[in-house]
Amino acid sequence: MVAEILAIGTELLLGSIVNTNARFLSRKLAENAIQVYRHGTVGDNVGRILEELERALRRSDLVITSGGLGPTEDDVTKRAIAAFIRKPLVLHGPTYRRLRQRLKGHTGVVPRLLKWQCHLPQGARVIPNSVGTAPGLLCRVPNGKTPQWILALPGPPRELEPMFIRHALSLLLKAAPRSRGHFIIRSLRLSGLTEAQAAQKVTDLLKLKPPATVGIYAKPSEVELKIMVKDASLQTARRKAKRLEQIIRSRFKEKVYGADESSLAGVVGDLLRKKRKTLSVAESCTGGLCSSLITDCPGSSDYFIGGLVAYHHRLKTGFLGIGPRILKTQGAVSAASARCLAAQIRKRFGTDYGIGITGIAGPSGGSAQKPVGLAYLAVAGPRGVKTEKNLFRGNRTLIKLRAAHRALDKLRLELLSRGSSSAG
Amino acid sequence: MVAEILAIGTELLLGSIVNTNARFLSRKLAENAIQVYRHGTVGDNVGRILEELERALRRSDLVITSGGLGPTEDDVTKRAIAAFIRKPLVLHGPTYRRLRQRLKGHTGVVPRLLKWQCHLPQGARVIPNSVGTAPGLLCRVPNGKTPQWILALPGPPRELEPMFIRHALSLLLKAAPRSRGHFIIRSLRLSGLTEAQAAQKVTDLLKLKPPATVGIYAKPSEVELKIMVKDASLQTARRKAKRLEQIIRSRFKEKVYGADESSLAGVVGDLLRKKRKTLSVAESCTGGLCSSLITDCPGSSDYFIGGLVAYHHRLKTGFLGIGPRILKTQGAVSAASARCLAAQIRKRFGTDYGIGITGIAGPSGGSAQKPVGLAYLAVAGPRGVKTEKNLFRGNRTLIKLRAAHRALDKLRLELLSRGSSSAG
Repeated sequence: MVAEILAIGTELLLGSIVNTNARFLSRKLAENAIQVYRHGTVGDNVGRILEELERALRRSDLVITSGGLGPTEDDVTKRAIAAFIRKPLVLHGPTYRRLRQRLKGHTGVVPRLLKWQCHLPQGARVIPNSVGTAPGLLCRVPNGKTPQWILALPGPPRELEPMFIRHALSLLLKAAPRSRGHFIIRSLRLSGLTEAQAAQKVTDLLKLKPPATVGIYAKPSEVELKIMVKDASLQTARRKAKRLEQIIRSRFKEKVYGADESSLAGVVGDLLRKKRKTLSVAESCTGGLCSSLITDCPGSSDYFIGGLVAYHHRLKTGFLGIGPRILKTQGAVSAASARCLAAQIRKRFGTDYGIGITGIAGPSGGSAQKPVGLAYLAVAGPRGVKTEKNLFRGNRTLIKLRAAHRALDKLRLELLSRGSSSAG
Repeated sequence: MVAEILAIGTELLLGSIVNTNARFLSRKLAENAIQVYRHGTVGDNVGRILEELERALRRSDLVITSGGLGPTEDDVTKRAIAAFIRKPLVLHGPTYRRLRQRLKGHTGVVPRLLKWQCHLPQGARVIPNSVGTAPGLLCRVPNGKTPQWILALPGPPRELEPMFIRHALSLLLKAAPRSRGHFIIRSLRLSGLTEAQAAQKVTDLLKLKPPATVGIYAKPSEVELKIMVKDASLQTARRKAKRLEQIIRSRFKEKVYGADESSLAGVVGDLLRKKRKTLSVAESCTGGLCSSLITDCPGSSDYFIGGLVAYHHRLKTGFLGIGPRILKTQGAVSAASARCLAAQIRKRFGTDYGIGITGIAGPSGGSAQKPVGLAYLAVAGPRGVKTEKNLFRGNRTLIKLRAAHRALDKLRLELLSRGSSSAG
């Protein structure tokens, strides 16, 4: 099966938003051995959408559209699709009743728009939206030849992604002609080194040619190594991917913190839960971000007791007991301060581990001795306090993110080393 | 001038990277009154690139390509462009000498590839690359009618963006047929209402046709109304946009929290700074996100003293003095708890205002009485404590974001009402 992806939205052509849906869908299709021939983006205009559908379906079996399914006047995707497949838009009773039930008691529901939202092309397969109100659609294109399909998904990634994974993909795979091979994609996530440092250790692997390749991608605070293997046999593809994964893991050891969709905070959380340990955070320059990353993980209340955002000096001295002498001689941004933050929050909040972060996120506040990006991180635990000095590059939000991630990674390594020592 | 943007790269079709270039270029073109008709993405294949160029230049004056200019076998963009404009690829002496000079002594330079890198379509205007090795190209399409152009830029955003801003844009504006007008874009940001509620108040404006239009966009926790006006006179365009802005502001009043790139936390911060007031936050379900949003704003240390992430009950009772009776009779997720969080953090941290947030972010922990998404927000200030009950939709990270934003908005409204009362 060959597919094209069509994003619909004038805001994309104006550069107001980035089209992350094309990337998400392409990856998922690649993983399922569906070839993507091209991506396109057009504005909210029935004529132009029709033109794109027409052209795409001249050579491809499937067009996936994103966007333009909302309740307002300028959401015209379903009107264009109905015109293309020559069906009227009719009220879809079950969807309307379900939506009305779900939104009962919610403020801000406009009955007229809600009803219009549920007018869908006759005969379309309706795909439920668990996050937003716009249902997705799968329509067969009537043409007498090999079956062709239009899959229409809502624009917001938070709605499109779960809808595609939970419902649309399996419908597509059922509808699709048998695929010609299997594709395995495996991402290994590395922390604590730069893209160049990582690349140097895998120059041989980065030169591999299809059907088995390794790619390298730098993310704001980590490096991703992506293994892609294609083979007629699923078993062979899996075996080859596994072998490449073993090679990479043996070269980077504990710098590989996780795989695929795992997050650093999630990996740290899993370690804490497994070891039945608790955590607290005292952060200054990261301003709450470290706690927020930790609490992004479902179930983090199992191990996370709480955090203190000690932004003003008086919280550092008052609540955390950093002595005025430390502040005076070494400053709030110092190894001694970070050590104090970690040790004191651990004590005050009664946890097994404490994280302390202090630094200069910028853009102002830096000096020759203490430039913007300087950050001290500390992890306090049963075996004492460890501190680390770092100089992070980037703007304010990047420095916050990099400092928070580095602190979490420090805790991860501490938890791993404890694990190995107690096992030894 | 009408433009299309064509991204070239099989890695885009595989979903390995996000196409941020389309967004960057679209925004820059919009700012310079160049209309973008569509975006496309194709793989590294001469035939498909030719097909796209052919089609795009049937209706547009300009195609900007990104990617495929590198030194390796699969970088075929310049080969396709040379074929399209019917010119041979020839060694560009000045570029070759400059590059050889610049890379002297660098490791990893392959002479053969370097030379190939400098083979460019005859007659093309060469655009220097200050970051990478691939030069950009501006080629006039020979067709006898109105002038048409192909601008080829390298794929990596860190090369493309400075090349476009420093060199390519001014070349384009010189080459372009006199632009037919000026384009004003103005975004108004609304909080505290849904897309449907907002749409209902501006159904008339949403129906406007070019050259003056209003679009509506739903963001995770706000609604954006975008005014777009085109006119031959810059002054007239500005006046029309201003008029539309006034109409929208008069209908939504204080629900318009800001314009263009402003953020809710930034607007709240500006109000606090102006009034010389300080703020602290005690948050439970938002887990540090509210503090983190506040501290994303440069200079937030002017007014933000600190925050407490009271995740475990013992912090709510111990540090913030929520009585065990409240926890027992009303629970940690209750108006009484939110009130206590806000009032106590304000007192303990000695600030003018205190925010309290407690709720259920999910996915687990909900019940029939207290479902996932339920959140109580409180703002404590010199005039007492105000609380609000909300039921937010979405997944865990969305509920966190919506609750944090709603609390910031509550504080904003409180600060505004104080302003008006002290002025009255």
